[in-house]
Amino acid sequence: MDKLSEIRAQVPAVQSQVYLNTGTAGPLPEPVRAAMAESLAAQVSGGRIASEYYVKLSRLKAEIRARHATMLGCEPDEIALTQNTTDGMNLVTLGVNWQPGDEAITTNLEHAGALFPLFAARARFGITIKIADVLERPEEAAAVIERLITPRTKLIAVSHVSFITGAVLPVKEIAEVAHRHGVLVLVDGAQSFGAIPVNVKELGVDFYAVTSQKWLCGPEGAGALYASRAAVSQVQITFAGYNTAQAYDMYAGLLPKGNAQKFEQGTLQPATLAGHLAALRWLTDEVGADWAYSRIRSLAAAARALLAEVPGVTVLTPAETAGLVSFQVEANADAVLKALTGQKILIRTVPHPRSLRLSTGFYNTEEELEQLAAALRPLARA
Amino acid sequence: MDKLSEIRAQVPAVQSQVYLNTGTAGPLPEPVRAAMAESLAAQVSGGRIASEYYVKLSRLKAEIRARHATMLGCEPDEIALTQNTTDGMNLVTLGVNWQPGDEAITTNLEHAGALFPLFAARARFGITIKIADVLERPEEAAAVIERLITPRTKLIAVSHVSFITGAVLPVKEIAEVAHRHGVLVLVDGAQSFGAIPVNVKELGVDFYAVTSQKWLCGPEGAGALYASRAAVSQVQITFAGYNTAQAYDMYAGLLPKGNAQKFEQGTLQPATLAGHLAALRWLTDEVGADWAYSRIRSLAAAARALLAEVPGVTVLTPAETAGLVSFQVEANADAVLKALTGQKILIRTVPHPRSLRLSTGFYNTEEELEQLAAALRPLARA
Repeated sequence: MDKLSEIRAQVPAVQSQVYLNTGTAGPLPEPVRAAMAESLAAQVSGGRIASEYYVKLSRLKAEIRARHATMLGCEPDEIALTQNTTDGMNLVTLGVNWQPGDEAITTNLEHAGALFPLFAARARFGITIKIADVLERPEEAAAVIERLITPRTKLIAVSHVSFITGAVLPVKEIAEVAHRHGVLVLVDGAQSFGAIPVNVKELGVDFYAVTSQKWLCGPEGAGALYASRAAVSQVQITFAGYNTAQAYDMYAGLLPKGNAQKFEQGTLQPATLAGHLAALRWLTDEVGADWAYSRIRSLAAAARALLAEVPGVTVLTPAETAGLVSFQVEANADAVLKALTGQKILIRTVPHPRSLRLSTGFYNTEEELEQLAAALRPLARA
Repeated sequence: MDKLSEIRAQVPAVQSQVYLNTGTAGPLPEPVRAAMAESLAAQVSGGRIASEYYVKLSRLKAEIRARHATMLGCEPDEIALTQNTTDGMNLVTLGVNWQPGDEAITTNLEHAGALFPLFAARARFGITIKIADVLERPEEAAAVIERLITPRTKLIAVSHVSFITGAVLPVKEIAEVAHRHGVLVLVDGAQSFGAIPVNVKELGVDFYAVTSQKWLCGPEGAGALYASRAAVSQVQITFAGYNTAQAYDMYAGLLPKGNAQKFEQGTLQPATLAGHLAALRWLTDEVGADWAYSRIRSLAAAARALLAEVPGVTVLTPAETAGLVSFQVEANADAVLKALTGQKILIRTVPHPRSLRLSTGFYNTEEELEQLAAALRPLARA
C-alpha cells in the first residue's frame, strides 16, 4: 500500500473528503498544479510575444498529441487538441455533411456532450435523431443500433462508458455494424479515457473525444479528439481558427490542414496545456496507466459487491464495469445525496433513470467504499 | 511618471525587452498571475466536485460578465464568455440562418478571426463573401459597404480596428447602413477592446467579439461576446455545450437560454477565468481605463510622428489611431524585424499589404518609441 499512499499524498483533495466523483472531475495532483504555475510564472517574466514562446508552445502541443496517441493507440497526426469532450463531440457532429432528412443514431444512455450537438444539428440541418434503447441490455447495443440504420444514416454517436449506468458499450461491434453500412462512428470517451484501456484502432472507430479533467486528473479546459486519417476528410470544419488552415488567401479562402489538427481552434491557455501534459505524464510515468486501470476496475467491483448488500439499494451498473457504479435507493435520492455530503462523502446523482453514482478513482481506498456503504445503510430504505 | 513606474513594476516582461506588440499579446501582470495561482491552489486542496466549487465558479462567471458589460456599455445578460475573439466570431458567423446564395460582407483589412468563419460558412452553406476595398479610405467604409448590400446580404463582419493598418473603422455608420437594410453586424474587437473606449449601444452593433490577452493584458484562452437582446434570437447555436440549455429532454431536445449565455460552451479552466477577472479589475480599478486609453492614443500619435521622420519608412496608419501603428520600409521587412528582435525590440509583421506593426501599450514609454525609431534609422532604407 506504499504506492497508494504516495499517490494520495500528491492529491491533497482526497485527504479531507471521501472523493468518489472522478466521473465529474478527478482531484488535481500537485505536480499538475506545479507545471501550470511554472508556465504562468514564465509568461509573466518573459512575456508572450517572443518567437521562443511560440516555439515552446508548439513543442508542448506536439508532445501532448504524441502522449494522447500513445494512450489511444493511434498516430499523433490523428489527434486534435480540444477544450473538453463536448468540444470534440460538437466539432464532429456539426461537421458531418448533413442534408435534410439525414439520420443520426445515439442511445438512451448519453450525456449532454453527445446529445446537444445532435440537437443543434437537427435544428440547423433538419436531420432525424434515432435513440436506441439499450438501457436494459447494453451488451446488445450493436444489434439494436443496426436495426435503426437506414440508407440516410450518416453518424452513430455513443458513449464508450455511459455516464448514467456506467455500462461499457460494445464499441467495437457498433463500429463493425456502422462501417458495414458506411456510417461514421463518434465515441464520447469522457468516462473511459484514463479509466479503462482504450485502443481506437482495435475499436475501429472514426472519432473518439476525450477530456483531461476526469479520469486523467488533468486541468479543466483541456481535451483531445482522435480523428482517423480515413475519416478526417469526411467531416467539414465548423469552427475555423488560426490553427485550422495550412494556408489562406483573402479571396480564395482557406486550405484546411490535412489531418486532425484542422479541428484545432484559436488561442489556448499555455498553462492549461502544460497541466494537461503534466497529467498525461503523471498517469503514465508515475502512477502507471495499467496499474490505474486495474485498481479502478477492482474498486468498482468491490463497490458493486458492497452496495448489493445494503438494504434499499439496487445496483444498476452491469458486472462489466469501468469506474462508475450507479445505484438506486428506495429513499429520496436527493435527500440521500445531501446526507452523504454532510458526512463529506462526495458522489452525485444522474438522470434517466434517476440514480446515485459513485466513481472509483485509482487513488480511492477500499475503506472509503466501506464508509460509503455504512453511511447508506441507515439512509437507503424508504 | 510615478504611476507609470508602478504599472511597469507589475508587468515584469516589459523590463527586459522593448515590448511593442500588445496587438499580439499584452504582458501578463503579476496580480493576474497571482489570481490564477490562487485558483489552482484552491483546486488542488479542495478538489473540484464540492457544491461550493460550482457556486464560486458561477459567481466568478457572473462577475466577469458584469465587468464586461460595464466596459462595453451593455447589460450582463448580453455577454457570453468565450475562449477568444475568434471563438465569438465563429459562434455568430456560423450561427446565421444561411441559405445557399446568401451573402456576407467583410473588408480587405480583416484578420483570420473574421475571415476564417466566413470561409467555413461559404463551404458549409454556399454563401457568397463580398470584400469591401477600404484599404485607402477606411473612413468611407460605410458607403463602400452599402454599395455591396443586396437583398441576399445577411451579415457584415468587420474589425473595429484593423490588425493590418491600425485604421479605426466607422462602425457606427456601418451599423446604421446595415440596419437600414436589415443586415446583422458582427464586430471583431480584438484590437479595440481595452485600447479605445467601446460602447456597443452607441455603436448600435448586434455582436461584438473581444479577447482577454491583448489590450486587457489578461490570460490567453479567455474572451467575451456581446450579443444584443434584439439580435440573440436571430443566430442559432453552432456549438452546444452544457451551458447552452436552460432545459433539455432526450427526445424533445434542448431549450436554449434566452440570452447571450446560449453561446457559452462546456467546461472552462477556472484559473483562466480568475485571471480574466483579475485583468478586468486591474485595468479598470488600478490602471484606470480612461487613463490607459488616453496614454495608448498619445503614444500611438508619438510613434506616427517619430516614424514619419525616419528615412525609408512610410507610415500606413491614418491619423485617427487606436494603439496600432503600421509602416512599410524600403528594406526587406523580415530582415528589419530580425534586426530589431536582435536588439530586443519586439514588433511584428502583418500581411496585405505586407508591413511592420508596433503596438503602444499604456505601459510603454516615449523613450521606447525613440529607441525603435533610432534602431530603424540604419535599417529602413533599401
